[in-house]
Amino acid sequence: MEQHEIGVGEQTVVAVATPPGQGGIAVVRVSGKDAIGIVDSAWRGKPLGGVTSHTSHLGRYVATDGAVLDECVSTIFRGPNSFTGEDVVEISLHGSRWIQREVVADLIRRGAKAAGRGEFTRRAFMNGRLDLAQAEGVADLIAASSRAAHALAMTQTSGGFSRGLEEVREKLVEFASLLELELDFSEEDVEFADRARLEELAANLLKRLERLASSYSSGAALKEGVPVVIAGVPNAGKSSLLNLILGDDKAIVSDIPGTTRDTIEDTAEIDGVLFRFIDTAGLRATEDTVENLGIERARERMRKARIVVWLIDPTSPIEPQEEEITRLRKENPEAEVIKVVGKGDLIHPSPTLPYGAAYAAGELSDGSDTASLPYGAVLVMSMKTGDGLESLQQRLTAAATGGYDPQAEFIVTNARHYEALLQGADALRRALAGLHDGLSADFIAQDVREATSHIGTITGAITTDTLLHNIFAKFCIGK
Amino acid sequence: MEQHEIGVGEQTVVAVATPPGQGGIAVVRVSGKDAIGIVDSAWRGKPLGGVTSHTSHLGRYVATDGAVLDECVSTIFRGPNSFTGEDVVEISLHGSRWIQREVVADLIRRGAKAAGRGEFTRRAFMNGRLDLAQAEGVADLIAASSRAAHALAMTQTSGGFSRGLEEVREKLVEFASLLELELDFSEEDVEFADRARLEELAANLLKRLERLASSYSSGAALKEGVPVVIAGVPNAGKSSLLNLILGDDKAIVSDIPGTTRDTIEDTAEIDGVLFRFIDTAGLRATEDTVENLGIERARERMRKARIVVWLIDPTSPIEPQEEEITRLRKENPEAEVIKVVGKGDLIHPSPTLPYGAAYAAGELSDGSDTASLPYGAVLVMSMKTGDGLESLQQRLTAAATGGYDPQAEFIVTNARHYEALLQGADALRRALAGLHDGLSADFIAQDVREATSHIGTITGAITTDTLLHNIFAKFCIGK
Repeated sequence: MEQHEIGVGEQTVVAVATPPGQGGIAVVRVSGKDAIGIVDSAWRGKPLGGVTSHTSHLGRYVATDGAVLDECVSTIFRGPNSFTGEDVVEISLHGSRWIQREVVADLIRRGAKAAGRGEFTRRAFMNGRLDLAQAEGVADLIAASSRAAHALAMTQTSGGFSRGLEEVREKLVEFASLLELELDFSEEDVEFADRARLEELAANLLKRLERLASSYSSGAALKEGVPVVIAGVPNAGKSSLLNLILGDDKAIVSDIPGTTRDTIEDTAEIDGVLFRFIDTAGLRATEDTVENLGIERARERMRKARIVVWLIDPTSPIEPQEEEITRLRKENPEAEVIKVVGKGDLIHPSPTLPYGAAYAAGELSDGSDTASLPYGAVLVMSMKTGDGLESLQQRLTAAATGGYDPQAEFIVTNARHYEALLQGADALRRALAGLHDGLSADFIAQDVREATSHIGTITGAITTDTLLHNIFAKFCIGK
Repeated sequence: MEQHEIGVGEQTVVAVATPPGQGGIAVVRVSGKDAIGIVDSAWRGKPLGGVTSHTSHLGRYVATDGAVLDECVSTIFRGPNSFTGEDVVEISLHGSRWIQREVVADLIRRGAKAAGRGEFTRRAFMNGRLDLAQAEGVADLIAASSRAAHALAMTQTSGGFSRGLEEVREKLVEFASLLELELDFSEEDVEFADRARLEELAANLLKRLERLASSYSSGAALKEGVPVVIAGVPNAGKSSLLNLILGDDKAIVSDIPGTTRDTIEDTAEIDGVLFRFIDTAGLRATEDTVENLGIERARERMRKARIVVWLIDPTSPIEPQEEEITRLRKENPEAEVIKVVGKGDLIHPSPTLPYGAAYAAGELSDGSDTASLPYGAVLVMSMKTGDGLESLQQRLTAAATGGYDPQAEFIVTNARHYEALLQGADALRRALAGLHDGLSADFIAQDVREATSHIGTITGAITTDTLLHNIFAKFCIGK
């Protein structure tokens, strides 16, 4: 983590830090070298200039025109032991919109500047209190709306993710040193022994970068909510399944095939993971133009889905349904397809129905999908009793994390980090090819330096003004 | 201010104190005898049990299931030196909805109770930190949306209003003592000398109570926004005046008489006072049913108005316009009627128009309404240039405060206080009549005690559970 001198001596800024609107209390945050002096000039109470850091004081805020704006509590955080690393005063006011507006306006009259988006966090970065990945984690933390998204943001904010990256970056620097060592002794023809060792090192580092980069698909889904498309022939029970998962009657359920024409979307948190369920029109040949539009949209959704829950109707011909699944697996090989028979209560007593015989023979049971059947494993559920729902939920959360364990390894959730990892991996791949092809060490070192630099942009060890602007422009005011 | 023992030892409560929603930070407030212990059980950092009051500490909040919910700052306020008078912990969290919800839920699992509406302020009252009028002032302070409303709420919150009332109450108690003294010596026939003095004392106190009670009409208007009805014949320029005041094109302006059929309402703050302007349909005889409905509504508004700005059209016959004003003054003698000629630019060069001659003769000038004219004073304005607007604004703010000076005397803004003052005045009036009619001192003392008791309900010196419930039920959660 580098100290950026640019942050020191910047003008004092002010903003409301709590959510907009009216409430019991609201907090106005002031940060900068004049923060304490500016607030003190409006303060009637114990002078804040002399108080200890991290202490709270009751007083009155008096505007420049002499009006008492509020009786309130000011808490002093002296730099560098504050969020921004600068002197910070947090004024806890009565939460009226009028008081919030007037206090901010008065502080601006006294010489503070209205804080821009993410300005406090930007200053924390500038003053070396947070690296860039941590700062981005703060925004993710505030936006997190599920346990999984929150846990990922916490790892990022607390610096765990950065430490993991820093380790990779140090290995890359070490790698570059070894290359330079080879360069120094190249006259002496000690090349070949080192090259094998270097190739192994580069391959290991590349594997780590690739593993990190490929976690992005799961990470982004965990952060934003994992989309799950529910598909099947008409009347297979898709809307019923959606209602069962959501626990209410969001989708319109009827016995008329083709009831769901539009795609319905709703969210549910399962075991801490936020899922976005997308109900689709039943797939069938039809002359109805509107229904066909719905079916085309359903196919489009499936082609792009990460997870598809495919509901099989055991009372309809099985062949066409399996053909659709085969088609989907061909068009979207990345997708995790979970095959479900949703009418468990129907097949239980009917050995003549598809799956009925297997069920009667004990080869298939509710909530289990381990049985080997003509068309592969299937999960049997009953929409009426809810049997098998728990198994489906377990399948869904396993598919969402995609084999990554957020407890045991770092998961990438940020598109910018993903891009930097891909570029870093690319450069390292070129270095590896160079080693393999026996290119000269200074050529290879250039690729390694490029890889190091890409990884460095993630934590902000390497950064530009434009990059910083783009990152903090996405923050809210007051953070 | 009395100490209510009921507040001590109540269960610890928790609520989000900042406005609902997502923001940079959010504050969760915990209050009660176990507040510090409960937060400490979730706290990873310096143990909060041992820290000094009014200090802030960085740490991690760890949920009962071991998940780190946030890295946050806890500020400790030890009772009785806290808002509620109990031990209070304010946890300043990252302002995600998820974190706020989870931290509150976790604190409830650890033994805190979800705070009811106004529960923190109710406890402050119970523990003698605020009297009832001050507590009600807190709610008004949070809701205040103009400088005037804010200033009135500040006076009430800071106890100025209560001190004024307490003074009246002490005088009433003194009065009752004098009556009792008379009672003690009644055998000795010293009655008559004292009665004259007592009558004078009672009359003075009654005058104070009546002055306070009659300030309510202004106080409530200053708090809620002062309604101003803009009336006149069609095409007198009512909508233009409204737009001039509001500074935008809120009302539809056209040259076709009768454009405004519905009443339009909008607010503007003038010199710190919030006004609610009500544009009305032009008054004229018409066959149009819809227009007649609008005219009837306009008359209804005028009958109930506190302030009416009456726009005279100098290009229309003056007699019928003056007849309408006479009718209004008869139907609503309490209303402050401000007569305005809105087409100053038309009458300036036209001595033949009504008022034109007076203008030409220098008896009338823009923005002045002191001239004595056939139909009384009138304020000349020009909608086109805005001339005279400032004079109108001054007239409006003077009418709004109704002769009361919020800087120099207490103004009642609360309906409950108003009612108590009316009842107190009634009882005192009976006492005064009793004195006058020579009733026995114990009879009169009963009325004085009743008056004292009514005044006591305002500050909460006398209170009931039902009264408290009704008051705090209007608060928001977290205050």
